[in-house]
Amino acid sequence: MNQYLVNIGIKAKEASRKMALLGVTEKNRGLMAVSRALKENMEPIMAANSIDVKIAEEKGVKASLIDRLKVNEGRILAMAEGIDQVVSLSDPVGEIKNTILRPNGLMIGKKVVPLGVIGIIYESRPNVTADAFALCFKTGNAVILRGGSDAINSNLAITKVIKNALREEGLPEDAINLLEDTSRETAKELMRLNKYVDVLIPRGGSGLIKTVVNESTVPVIETGTGNCHVYVDEFADINMATEIIFNAKTQRLGVCNACESLVIHSKVLEKALPVIVEKLWAKDVQVRGDERAVAVKKGILPATEEDWGAEYLDSIISVKIVDSIEDAIAHINRYNTGHSEAIITDNYFNAQKFQNEIDAAAVYVNASTRFTDGFEFGMGAEIGISTQKLHARGPMGLEALTTVKYIISGQGQIRE
Amino acid sequence: MNQYLVNIGIKAKEASRKMALLGVTEKNRGLMAVSRALKENMEPIMAANSIDVKIAEEKGVKASLIDRLKVNEGRILAMAEGIDQVVSLSDPVGEIKNTILRPNGLMIGKKVVPLGVIGIIYESRPNVTADAFALCFKTGNAVILRGGSDAINSNLAITKVIKNALREEGLPEDAINLLEDTSRETAKELMRLNKYVDVLIPRGGSGLIKTVVNESTVPVIETGTGNCHVYVDEFADINMATEIIFNAKTQRLGVCNACESLVIHSKVLEKALPVIVEKLWAKDVQVRGDERAVAVKKGILPATEEDWGAEYLDSIISVKIVDSIEDAIAHINRYNTGHSEAIITDNYFNAQKFQNEIDAAAVYVNASTRFTDGFEFGMGAEIGISTQKLHARGPMGLEALTTVKYIISGQGQIRE
Repeated sequence: MNQYLVNIGIKAKEASRKMALLGVTEKNRGLMAVSRALKENMEPIMAANSIDVKIAEEKGVKASLIDRLKVNEGRILAMAEGIDQVVSLSDPVGEIKNTILRPNGLMIGKKVVPLGVIGIIYESRPNVTADAFALCFKTGNAVILRGGSDAINSNLAITKVIKNALREEGLPEDAINLLEDTSRETAKELMRLNKYVDVLIPRGGSGLIKTVVNESTVPVIETGTGNCHVYVDEFADINMATEIIFNAKTQRLGVCNACESLVIHSKVLEKALPVIVEKLWAKDVQVRGDERAVAVKKGILPATEEDWGAEYLDSIISVKIVDSIEDAIAHINRYNTGHSEAIITDNYFNAQKFQNEIDAAAVYVNASTRFTDGFEFGMGAEIGISTQKLHARGPMGLEALTTVKYIISGQGQIRE
Repeated sequence: MNQYLVNIGIKAKEASRKMALLGVTEKNRGLMAVSRALKENMEPIMAANSIDVKIAEEKGVKASLIDRLKVNEGRILAMAEGIDQVVSLSDPVGEIKNTILRPNGLMIGKKVVPLGVIGIIYESRPNVTADAFALCFKTGNAVILRGGSDAINSNLAITKVIKNALREEGLPEDAINLLEDTSRETAKELMRLNKYVDVLIPRGGSGLIKTVVNESTVPVIETGTGNCHVYVDEFADINMATEIIFNAKTQRLGVCNACESLVIHSKVLEKALPVIVEKLWAKDVQVRGDERAVAVKKGILPATEEDWGAEYLDSIISVKIVDSIEDAIAHINRYNTGHSEAIITDNYFNAQKFQNEIDAAAVYVNASTRFTDGFEFGMGAEIGISTQKLHARGPMGLEALTTVKYIISGQGQIRE
């Protein structure tokens, strides 16, 4: 066992025991101190970040990735504001739910408690360091962060600022722990640190998530891959469909709730497809369709089997033509990633059928898939969007970072 | 990939889609038919079971294990009664929780839905075949069962009866699937069948559970290992402590909520230990203690480091002496398995402190750990007792076999 990692595990577990006993006033005091400290320490954070950026530039990393990596005053202010928002959220910890009195006099309640130690494995954005810490801290958890090696100097600088702020407030600074060792081996050992880590949340691309799911013995919450569909039903308002598809595909590329695939009922194919495609082309979206789609609109490229399962995160969309809502549902349930799916229809029964039979975290009628998001769902900040079924599904707010324990009060009861 | 297993996965997934759409009336009709069919088909089930028992006897399997394996009329009636009880439980599926109306007019609700396909890996008791099926069926899930090879004939016979009953009722018979191939290789492949299996629940000894946690890429709910402690505080009623410890240790050996270790405050050591030990000895419980325990009561055997972490499931108990409640909590949090822990005390603050600081699924004040059980907690039958923190903790009733999906109803909303 990697002693470096075990030591971090021990420190994090100890901090989590202290964190679990803090009231919301103390946790908010810590978060406000961290928010202030970030604003007061922009210089060292940006200096550390410029080292990461310089190394990335020398390596010839592409511009869009360097942009993700960059930390400027605006982004530090955004981190601080994000923390302030977390301060304003209500704390789910401590509530005792469904207390019952059993016939034998035992009183049994279900108390909301922190998960304990949360591991977060993420890629290049340094703001995740502050965001993930804030959500975990607010819910009384300690966190072990493993960011990308390309952002290590930035992440270390941010972590140092946070630790100092917590220490000055007399709060457990080991509530945040960043792995300085960003090797793959250490990451894999983190995924097997069951003794100290209660849950792992990967945040990043599908490759990262797949690795964590495959390698981890610590329970994982899978997040974020989205092959989201919009189905244009035979009873769809074509104008509404066009606006929603345009929004879901182009409002922001590269996000997990963007639409990657259209499914269109053959009865509205000739009426709907040209309008939709023209609108997408006007924003340079490449359209790949099945044979029937290609036949109806010149300029659509032929789709291959891979297209149906693809999460492009790019200006590309696929189009599948179906002859019934049943076929649409079967196609979507076969290829989707369990994220967000939408039907556009005026028909009451088809709307219900789609919501009942589609197997995904969020199922929409007549709205854009882009709404699958913690803020849009009214829960405030989110730690990610779960695409698995255990523990949390869809946008994960503070409650997803908690568990329960049964507390039982007796007067000497024994079991007969 | 193992085509045999993939075919079962496909059938189970298809059945789960149908199951998810069934109302509680239809599901109860299926369960009642299964209950009747078990009672009507005692002969073939017992005949198949006698083959398993004969093979086990020829192998020289020990008597207690053969007893677990045996199926007689009484045990079949118990299975049928268990199913009748599941019929009487209310079905959590279909409820829409916390529906909110967002400022943009989107209506967002959280609908309780089945998990989908549940894999259960278990050991020798054939009754699990019927019990696990019933709980999964009631919640609209399909199940893939992988029982022990020693019970394969019994499990096949029970599964056949269940499938026939479902088919006769016009319900999806692939809601239950038993792996005929009980090889370890196939079990390991089941643990990686993420495409078709939504969750795996191992039911059995700690070796089985460890293997599933280590090998599975399918999300797992860890169940059942219990190194449960009773802490006798300095302010304990010694008589109550003695009765509770005697109950928690001896009322039933070999269960996960039995007490395996005592922690005693040094201030009551000389008064409490002899009384407790005499009572345990009267029922042939071997007591292993630390140096101070051994010094106070002749006949206590010296405990080793392994004893503190041991789940004996036998007539053995360990005793640790501590000088403060803080030390008691630290000891328990270090060695427990997150199952059930109890404090015996008259002191208000110590009771609270113990319930706040112990990290376990169930934390008791002045009651036996033996109450951690679905029936005792008022939830009816249980599929197991979760000792992990994700999704479900403690006794898992029907709700633990469900997840949620967000259903969103719009009128053309797009994201700005």
